[in-house]
Amino acid sequence: MEVYAVIMAGGTGTRLWPLSTREKPKQTHRFLGDDTLFQEAVHRIKPLVGLDHVLVVAGNRIVEELGRQEPRIPEANFIVEPAGMGTAPCIGLAAVHVAGRDPESVMVVLTADHHIGDVEGFHAALRTAVDAANNGHLVTLGVKPTEPSTGYGYIEHGDPIDRVRGLGVLRVSRFTEKPDRATASEMVRSGRYSWNSGMFVWRVDRILEEFRSHMPELYDQLVVIGDAVGSSSYMEVLEASWGQMPRETIDYGVMEKASDVVVVPVDIGWSDLGTWSSVMSLLPGDSDGNVVRGRHLGIDTRNSLIFGGDRLIATVGVRDLIVVDTGEALLICDKAQDQRVRDLVKML
Amino acid sequence: MEVYAVIMAGGTGTRLWPLSTREKPKQTHRFLGDDTLFQEAVHRIKPLVGLDHVLVVAGNRIVEELGRQEPRIPEANFIVEPAGMGTAPCIGLAAVHVAGRDPESVMVVLTADHHIGDVEGFHAALRTAVDAANNGHLVTLGVKPTEPSTGYGYIEHGDPIDRVRGLGVLRVSRFTEKPDRATASEMVRSGRYSWNSGMFVWRVDRILEEFRSHMPELYDQLVVIGDAVGSSSYMEVLEASWGQMPRETIDYGVMEKASDVVVVPVDIGWSDLGTWSSVMSLLPGDSDGNVVRGRHLGIDTRNSLIFGGDRLIATVGVRDLIVVDTGEALLICDKAQDQRVRDLVKML
Repeated sequence: MEVYAVIMAGGTGTRLWPLSTREKPKQTHRFLGDDTLFQEAVHRIKPLVGLDHVLVVAGNRIVEELGRQEPRIPEANFIVEPAGMGTAPCIGLAAVHVAGRDPESVMVVLTADHHIGDVEGFHAALRTAVDAANNGHLVTLGVKPTEPSTGYGYIEHGDPIDRVRGLGVLRVSRFTEKPDRATASEMVRSGRYSWNSGMFVWRVDRILEEFRSHMPELYDQLVVIGDAVGSSSYMEVLEASWGQMPRETIDYGVMEKASDVVVVPVDIGWSDLGTWSSVMSLLPGDSDGNVVRGRHLGIDTRNSLIFGGDRLIATVGVRDLIVVDTGEALLICDKAQDQRVRDLVKML
Repeated sequence: MEVYAVIMAGGTGTRLWPLSTREKPKQTHRFLGDDTLFQEAVHRIKPLVGLDHVLVVAGNRIVEELGRQEPRIPEANFIVEPAGMGTAPCIGLAAVHVAGRDPESVMVVLTADHHIGDVEGFHAALRTAVDAANNGHLVTLGVKPTEPSTGYGYIEHGDPIDRVRGLGVLRVSRFTEKPDRATASEMVRSGRYSWNSGMFVWRVDRILEEFRSHMPELYDQLVVIGDAVGSSSYMEVLEASWGQMPRETIDYGVMEKASDVVVVPVDIGWSDLGTWSSVMSLLPGDSDGNVVRGRHLGIDTRNSLIFGGDRLIATVGVRDLIVVDTGEALLICDKAQDQRVRDLVKML
């Protein structure tokens, strides 16, 4: 059984502006250590599949940068997405490439811009998921909620169907949209829900079958693209097909409608690093609760994130503040309002 | 009667870091308009005395920059102060230069880094002060207090001795050190006190006489320096004498002890621009109470000073914050604590 990993690297990381920009988005940056988030994602999956089985889907704008960051991934494994159209077209495109290599292989779908603290736990969960996928299930990794977040979709657990390699595999009763706070609290309390992490495992023939059933228009374009893979007209065909693609997520377009969807619940220190406060929560703080990168001088400064570069940042009398200083711009944001960075970027 | 103006330009403007630095202090910067504070000071006095009667005292480090900013002031009028030793040696040095040009002239002592909103009122007060000085008084301009500041010395008014050109000239009962808050409130309420602005007017022979009486060691050095003015050994003599100078203010060293000190109380929109909030209070704010220089994008941002350059500064959810962004450093400071910028600079 061949296993291919597809890293979706098309995200924009809007709420991590000004470090994350359209030209140099979140996954190309170092937030936590010496590796960029993309490099973290690659290094995490490499031991399971090998670099020649790692495919990367990303826009034209950043595919070159990703290639520089991981030069040992074969150039042919970088799949250009002509425009971001949601996860359904992205995954469909990757699927036809994987199917072209081995139509019976298992395909692991991963994200390029998340953090996973427990890499061994991640590997164990993936091994379980790959086995379940090989048996024909569509597998999603469900993250154990650590708070009643309203920022994620939730997966309701159904009956266990199996234990594979010591981990539970449960039927999915239902995918739910992002809930309100009260609903989220109830879900977390019940213990019967996972966060939808956006990580999936399936046989590539199975997911293509589901595309055919639930998104036939998209599927038709995938067939056209698949026929052109390796030909000189590939890019032309891809771009023409992409113009016909519906904008859709894999969750809504496929997973909520597909049969035989299962979840492997995991507790692996996952974070989507969506906001500056989530970045802050993963970095060690000093005795005043400040997290500092770069040169900082503080008086009466507490519980703040100082994320700078070479320039000195001095703070006096601040609390719960996020300060991000790049060569191009400066963000100063109340920690409780860091979701609104998205609004800032819209205004720009 | 000849009148010379001496602009003391040796200040460091510590609390306006990071814009104001030792290398490029406060008076060399634009805070309020197109002119630097030094240029404001020069343009303010020019109509009364003419540029060839404007002398500037400053350290070696910045005298060149000041010359660039006011190239029409004769080069010989820039007097280098080998090191900042307080206002007494500075004024003494200027006095021997003025005496060398005309020992019976009137000398107006001004600061290079303050703002005066009512320039006509300033001119009227100076005309009164010059006449009083010509009659032998040591004159200080006393600024009408607008708040019970603990940051200035206060001058207690005595009996009026005269009205000159329509303005009152009062004996000075007493110079007081910076008071505590309660004392300051009482002083302001009484109406019998002015702030000590650091602007003085006197005949040059009178101030030298006072130096001789109250600071004889300093006076002895002034005589040595005065004898060397115009000679090839001047700089050598100056530096040697400066090594013997006591560190002292004119207030403590002379004014508090001198006889025949008078005050001309003025209400001329004076500000020492000592802190960022005092800078802010002189600039027009927008409908959210923000004062912005440079490129700013704000969400839920109020009563804040955004003092930037070319780089975009974005703020979310901030109140009463001072943000100063220069090429070298960034300051983020609670407005109520902007006096502590001095402590920051000490730490650097």
